[in-house]
Amino acid sequence: MAIILTGGTVVTAVDCYRADVRIDGEKITAIGYKVQQPGDECIDARDCYLFPGGIDPHTHFDLPVGATITADDFASGTRAAAVGGTTTVLDFATQNRGESLARAVANWHAKATGNSYVDYGFHLAVSELSPGVLEEMACLPHTAGITSVKLYMAYKDVLQVDDGTLLRMLLLAKELGMLVCVHCENGDIIDVLVTEAKAQGRTAPKYHALTRPVAAEREATARAVCLAEVAGAPLYVVHVSSAAALDVIREARGKGLAIYAETCPQYLLLDESCYQTQDFSAAKYVMSPPLRPAANQAALWAGLCEGSLATTGSDHCSFNLVGQKELGRDDFSRIPNGGPGVENRFGLLYTYGVAAGKLTLNQFVAVTATNAAKLFGLFPQKGTLAVGSDADIVVWDPAVKTTISAGTQLQQVDYNLYEGMTQIGKARHVFLRGQHIVNDGRLTDDAPAGRYLMRRPYAAGGDSRVSV
Amino acid sequence: MAIILTGGTVVTAVDCYRADVRIDGEKITAIGYKVQQPGDECIDARDCYLFPGGIDPHTHFDLPVGATITADDFASGTRAAAVGGTTTVLDFATQNRGESLARAVANWHAKATGNSYVDYGFHLAVSELSPGVLEEMACLPHTAGITSVKLYMAYKDVLQVDDGTLLRMLLLAKELGMLVCVHCENGDIIDVLVTEAKAQGRTAPKYHALTRPVAAEREATARAVCLAEVAGAPLYVVHVSSAAALDVIREARGKGLAIYAETCPQYLLLDESCYQTQDFSAAKYVMSPPLRPAANQAALWAGLCEGSLATTGSDHCSFNLVGQKELGRDDFSRIPNGGPGVENRFGLLYTYGVAAGKLTLNQFVAVTATNAAKLFGLFPQKGTLAVGSDADIVVWDPAVKTTISAGTQLQQVDYNLYEGMTQIGKARHVFLRGQHIVNDGRLTDDAPAGRYLMRRPYAAGGDSRVSV
Amino acid sequence: MAIILTGGTVVTAVDCYRADVRIDGEKITAIGYKVQQPGDECIDARDCYLFPGGIDPHTHFDLPVGATITADDFASGTRAAAVGGTTTVLDFATQNRGESLARAVANWHAKATGNSYVDYGFHLAVSELSPGVLEEMACLPHTAGITSVKLYMAYKDVLQVDDGTLLRMLLLAKELGMLVCVHCENGDIIDVLVTEAKAQGRTAPKYHALTRPVAAEREATARAVCLAEVAGAPLYVVHVSSAAALDVIREARGKGLAIYAETCPQYLLLDESCYQTQDFSAAKYVMSPPLRPAANQAALWAGLCEGSLATTGSDHCSFNLVGQKELGRDDFSRIPNGGPGVENRFGLLYTYGVAAGKLTLNQFVAVTATNAAKLFGLFPQKGTLAVGSDADIVVWDPAVKTTISAGTQLQQVDYNLYEGMTQIGKARHVFLRGQHIVNDGRLTDDAPAGRYLMRRPYAAGGDSRVSV
Amino acid sequence: MAIILTGGTVVTAVDCYRADVRIDGEKITAIGYKVQQPGDECIDARDCYLFPGGIDPHTHFDLPVGATITADDFASGTRAAAVGGTTTVLDFATQNRGESLARAVANWHAKATGNSYVDYGFHLAVSELSPGVLEEMACLPHTAGITSVKLYMAYKDVLQVDDGTLLRMLLLAKELGMLVCVHCENGDIIDVLVTEAKAQGRTAPKYHALTRPVAAEREATARAVCLAEVAGAPLYVVHVSSAAALDVIREARGKGLAIYAETCPQYLLLDESCYQTQDFSAAKYVMSPPLRPAANQAALWAGLCEGSLATTGSDHCSFNLVGQKELGRDDFSRIPNGGPGVENRFGLLYTYGVAAGKLTLNQFVAVTATNAAKLFGLFPQKGTLAVGSDADIVVWDPAVKTTISAGTQLQQVDYNLYEGMTQIGKARHVFLRGQHIVNDGRLTDDAPAGRYLMRRPYAAGGDSRVSV
Repeated sequence: MAIILTGGTVVTAVDCYRADVRIDGEKITAIGYKVQQPGDECIDARDCYLFPGGIDPHTHFDLPVGATITADDFASGTRAAAVGGTTTVLDFATQNRGESLARAVANWHAKATGNSYVDYGFHLAVSELSPGVLEEMACLPHTAGITSVKLYMAYKDVLQVDDGTLLRMLLLAKELGMLVCVHCENGDIIDVLVTEAKAQGRTAPKYHALTRPVAAEREATARAVCLAEVAGAPLYVVHVSSAAALDVIREARGKGLAIYAETCPQYLLLDESCYQTQDFSAAKYVMSPPLRPAANQAALWAGLCEGSLATTGSDHCSFNLVGQKELGRDDFSRIPNGGPGVENRFGLLYTYGVAAGKLTLNQFVAVTATNAAKLFGLFPQKGTLAVGSDADIVVWDPAVKTTISAGTQLQQVDYNLYEGMTQIGKARHVFLRGQHIVNDGRLTDDAPAGRYLMRRPYAAGGDSRVSV
Repeated sequence: MAIILTGGTVVTAVDCYRADVRIDGEKITAIGYKVQQPGDECIDARDCYLFPGGIDPHTHFDLPVGATITADDFASGTRAAAVGGTTTVLDFATQNRGESLARAVANWHAKATGNSYVDYGFHLAVSELSPGVLEEMACLPHTAGITSVKLYMAYKDVLQVDDGTLLRMLLLAKELGMLVCVHCENGDIIDVLVTEAKAQGRTAPKYHALTRPVAAEREATARAVCLAEVAGAPLYVVHVSSAAALDVIREARGKGLAIYAETCPQYLLLDESCYQTQDFSAAKYVMSPPLRPAANQAALWAGLCEGSLATTGSDHCSFNLVGQKELGRDDFSRIPNGGPGVENRFGLLYTYGVAAGKLTLNQFVAVTATNAAKLFGLFPQKGTLAVGSDADIVVWDPAVKTTISAGTQLQQVDYNLYEGMTQIGKARHVFLRGQHIVNDGRLTDDAPAGRYLMRRPYAAGGDSRVSV
Repeated sequence: MAIILTGGTVVTAVDCYRADVRIDGEKITAIGYKVQQPGDECIDARDCYLFPGGIDPHTHFDLPVGATITADDFASGTRAAAVGGTTTVLDFATQNRGESLARAVANWHAKATGNSYVDYGFHLAVSELSPGVLEEMACLPHTAGITSVKLYMAYKDVLQVDDGTLLRMLLLAKELGMLVCVHCENGDIIDVLVTEAKAQGRTAPKYHALTRPVAAEREATARAVCLAEVAGAPLYVVHVSSAAALDVIREARGKGLAIYAETCPQYLLLDESCYQTQDFSAAKYVMSPPLRPAANQAALWAGLCEGSLATTGSDHCSFNLVGQKELGRDDFSRIPNGGPGVENRFGLLYTYGVAAGKLTLNQFVAVTATNAAKLFGLFPQKGTLAVGSDADIVVWDPAVKTTISAGTQLQQVDYNLYEGMTQIGKARHVFLRGQHIVNDGRLTDDAPAGRYLMRRPYAAGGDSRVSV
Repeated sequence: MAIILTGGTVVTAVDCYRADVRIDGEKITAIGYKVQQPGDECIDARDCYLFPGGIDPHTHFDLPVGATITADDFASGTRAAAVGGTTTVLDFATQNRGESLARAVANWHAKATGNSYVDYGFHLAVSELSPGVLEEMACLPHTAGITSVKLYMAYKDVLQVDDGTLLRMLLLAKELGMLVCVHCENGDIIDVLVTEAKAQGRTAPKYHALTRPVAAEREATARAVCLAEVAGAPLYVVHVSSAAALDVIREARGKGLAIYAETCPQYLLLDESCYQTQDFSAAKYVMSPPLRPAANQAALWAGLCEGSLATTGSDHCSFNLVGQKELGRDDFSRIPNGGPGVENRFGLLYTYGVAAGKLTLNQFVAVTATNAAKLFGLFPQKGTLAVGSDADIVVWDPAVKTTISAGTQLQQVDYNLYEGMTQIGKARHVFLRGQHIVNDGRLTDDAPAGRYLMRRPYAAGGDSRVSV
């Protein structure tokens, strides 16, 4: 017995057409006009879009940061993901200094196993590249199914690596078929500016933004691109927040370099004016990079359109304002960095992209699912609606309007960055490998069904962009 | 009774998977694993790719140029297109000065009707924008199904329009939902340099290239982009030949402008060294823009990959070396401009793109079919393999190798630009709206089945790029 | 008997030092500590700067424009120049269409001879390049002492030339040792926008600015640079008003091209907000290019500092608000273009450049005198304080402050663009070839002493920049 | 009694004129036509140029490097400078790690005092910025007369500083009126590439160049510019060797940043082909940055012309091929870095700049003397020919031709980078503060007369460029 989604409009990163979709078990087995057979269960998708389930390539669940830990764990984070239209997350398994990579991976499996409501994979966030770690790297793709690592150019004395480490990692990753993700901000600049600000008694949340200037992001982005060029390796720049950094990326791509980049809804939709409150509530927006002048937003939307920006990640890294963000009440540099968003990313891109006329339906699918799947070794299992692919399908009703609010979210954190903003459209049904996990907009009572994804190596061959 | 293509690999601009394709009449009606029904005819596509039929957005068939006329007409040109894997051409209905647009369109219908072996549409090449012509423009989209016009910034005193005309056309086209295509070379520069060269007795074919420098292309491209920006209108730059012009386009796209561009196989694969023969045979390569220094090729391939270049056109405009090109034996400026290529474009892009590792299969489909369909109002009828689309399908056997040669071509001209070069892969079968027009690599004996395509208006919504 | 200026600070484009200056007849004959001889007349210059007399390379005196003529003629214009610190002007002898160059030159000599209070030369503004004019060109440098011509890319159907004319002129000028000056605005764009604005009933002065966008200036500048590059000829871009145009120039200079540029005080100090008046008085600011958004000003100052902008011209082209600007009361396109400034240029650059800390004293001299002298074949006769040079000297008292006002100006026009702005410093004495024409800030009663300057050919050797 | 130089052509960075120059004691006291008095000594300078004595802002005399020490000390180095036309050198007093700045300065005074044939000042090369060093910095300008420091972005684990150190230094220097000089190469990239090359057994001298790619210079230059922008401080980039780095500088200057740069004769005249010898002699050219592809040379010359490059330094740092360079016979990374040039810099710039038509006489003076004087607090005492300035004068005979050769040089090293190249012109006489130290091309027998120069703080006011 199969499930047939009938009467909907199938949308991929390139196509958009009316057809029925047949699901047999975990897979899509046919798309067409008369693909129903006796005994099949039909679900009415008229007036709805059928989108590939969203892929959020950038989440931090259950992550210890200094003395605290993110508000969302895998259970709460992936429940929120699912109702929001996201069926796959890639979380950062984060190595502590002195820790083996195997340990970090084991830690993350312990956090996720049995708790995830959507499928998931891991990037490995590397904090140091000791000889032992170098040797472990070779095992990651095959043994652990991890084909991307992340390095930080910021967070001096904590996560920041020097250029030599980054270059060696790029050389190694190229050899191993891995993609290196980099947080591009110049941590030295930030460190000096933060020290200076604090010495001058500037402790309010807004100084977080003032001590992380666009120049620091642009510089680090250019440096990372240079290192990738020297290594002849591909590079993925996470959470691009500024036009200046994007220009660097576009120019590099024009030279034929395999540079990919991600932006986040918060950089597309919010701006530095969020820091201008008198009270401490601006701490909600303390994230890195910080929110930027509003003029950057148009450039980022253009980047999504013309392809310099390949993906959107939520960079979900939630801390409660009460009790967690408050750790930095007297010192902005102690405010845990990050904000929630895994629940809203998909809907925000639809609302402020598609419905606002900034993105086509195809572009929307590309930047919320397809491109991430291709870059991170999940395609065509994930990221598209095609025969043979996992039946990860969002039945999206574009006629529904809701208001985003912490009061109604599944994210387990005491605020929402987009409080009060309208969302157009809603995930009426969500299927994960054929399993009906969201029905009529609500999570079913099923146990967490998410599975760990062994990802394939990075391949330029997975890089299948459509240029118009 | 339907046709089932079985066992092939379906390739679109984003997907690539094994499935059977069901053709009912002119349309694709299902794609999947068990879509065959009793009575269906099966055609074995194992070990083959199923590609959307190629769309060549840039041909000149049966075109009078000065005292001569192109060697290929619609019959010979479209027979060549079909065996090469191209099922749609967009030809330039060209207005003579003083002629109404209706006259030009009627002329072109007279040339094409009943003679075309593939489906076809017309761009309208406008040589002057008199008040009467302005009024006629408004009828083009609805009455004539023509939603793109072409203007020339070169060919001083013949086709060249001034900036005011171009700007007015952009403003008008925006209003009418049309896309303006522009030949970007500064005709004044060329005119002065040609006059100067001839005054100095420089008459050999190579002076064609030396009097059309890259600077003239870059300048005109930048100017056209400026005019499009002022008008707030989209722009399609035909036959980009140089890295410098491409840089202008990339920068404009980064600013969010709707600038699209085309390149041609000759600029991707041939270079200015072709002009260095002692005899007159270099006249074969006299086209505008001319072939460029070889370093431009890598930039153009990069442009196809990262999306600054959306399409590939053949700019097929063939003249025999004997009797036609020879008109300029004593004066390069009298050599008819242009070369053949409609038969080879698809195969060259596969061979030197996909097989050479420069393009993914998806990118190949995007730049040979999908993007042209989207930009020129033919999608999703044409340009993809999706349920509901025309069954324009190429069954491509990647295992066949052939050698390109004028001796074996269907193009009705006495040379081939790519003589002696290898082609990897071959169109084993070609279907045009479900009709089997190429079987086992040969054109069937059927009468010409090509139909005229009424195209839809340009819409940014047709602009569905995938960015990775 | 000589004149000795004692105790002042000699400033050139590179030096700044205390010394006495000895003037014998028309020339400077010594600079040093003990250069006085018995019988010399001493003039006390303590606490003053000794500057080379200003050179204004861009004036339009006694110029017929449509149905009217500029408010200032040579007499009034050069009296204003002299008291303002300018001892040389280069005026545009303007060819009417159909007129020979000889005729244009004769016309201008008739206007100037015997009427000029400062030395003067002519550029020749060419409106068409007929065969006869081409032949005349060859005589200009030697017979007429004119070594620069000006062409317009704007003023469609009036002064505008096409690219072929401009390119031919560049080639010819290169051969003749002449420098081509170009007004860089795309006249076609402006023509279309003006027509459109008028069709929509937009007639107020502010539409002058809105129909001449920065894009039109940037585009034309890039095109002129391209033509100069193709010709291998030097180029002088007059009245650069925007950062975008300046970027084009800087990039060209970085490629080693001999591109020089001028800006004007109005673009350094005024901005588009001047057009936001409710009444017609905004017509005072109707000039081409128009005033720009204020953000451009910092870029222009930076350009003067780092050398992309070589000179400052007033573009003095004055029309009374009453009776002249009013011709366009009902139609902005009929407002005569231009404004006054020959009296204020020198003082404004000192005040808002040197006194404001934006320019060094040396840079001030360079951009108000030296660079113009070098580019236009007057160096070292003019433009510096050196032994053997003409004794054109301004004794500048930096301690005086005045307020700029039409009420007190010598410019013969009913307004001043800088009304109410402060000027720091004042020309206490001005010497023209040793003749004391301004004494204690007032013009002496002497008859006009200005002489026509036969200028030497353009030579890259005149291009003597100091890079720091 | 004074010395009168008669009949020569005085050349400054802006002027060029015939006049006599009067020297009283150490100073120039008059320039003019009749400045001779009874009893004065006349020296005939007919047919000669009078140039300001050259200033070489970049020498390394008596510098310990690893286990060896530079071949030239102050005595031999400054004798060579003097005969070559250079009357001032700025040497790098280099702090060893762990050493106080006072110690470094004292060391350098010990090396120089009584041994220098030309005037000299010190930059301070800082290798670490410990708290004690930070405090010492404040004393440098006033106590030690040192107003510039140098930091290295290369030489990992030896001299390289991190970005935080560089930023803190820029902030401090801005406060103290000092100019920060930076060696811009990414030492991490180089370190990884060197390690990799050695691991692969690539030990020949040419691998020095291959492990220091242009990308590493461009990246570090961009980063230094970014840090200067964040700090709001001026920056001086030493020894720019590539067009890519220069482009970064030009763009920064266009934004109004106070970024200055130096290039060296070796980058203007030699290229990477020097490394293509079969034997070890390529070690002569092992310097950092290495020689580049020849195409960079035109860009560097253009940079000198348009002002992005302010100065030329020799980066004189000489090691004998025999016995010193040979330390790296089996390992290119052990070859001491550097080459000689203090004797040739001035003559090479004249020959391949002025005589070759690439630089004007004024530009020559600017880039060999004036600009360095202005940037490093020596103007107008040094760097010009003006009343009141030190009588540091080169009487240059442009009619003499010589061949550069190690066999005839005063540099105390066993090779010359420019062996066999022609020099046009020669210093016939050299005066140091009025003292006749070179007579008829030969050093006189006088004892070393060079004095230590207490330099003034950096001031943008010293930044007096002429833009044309």
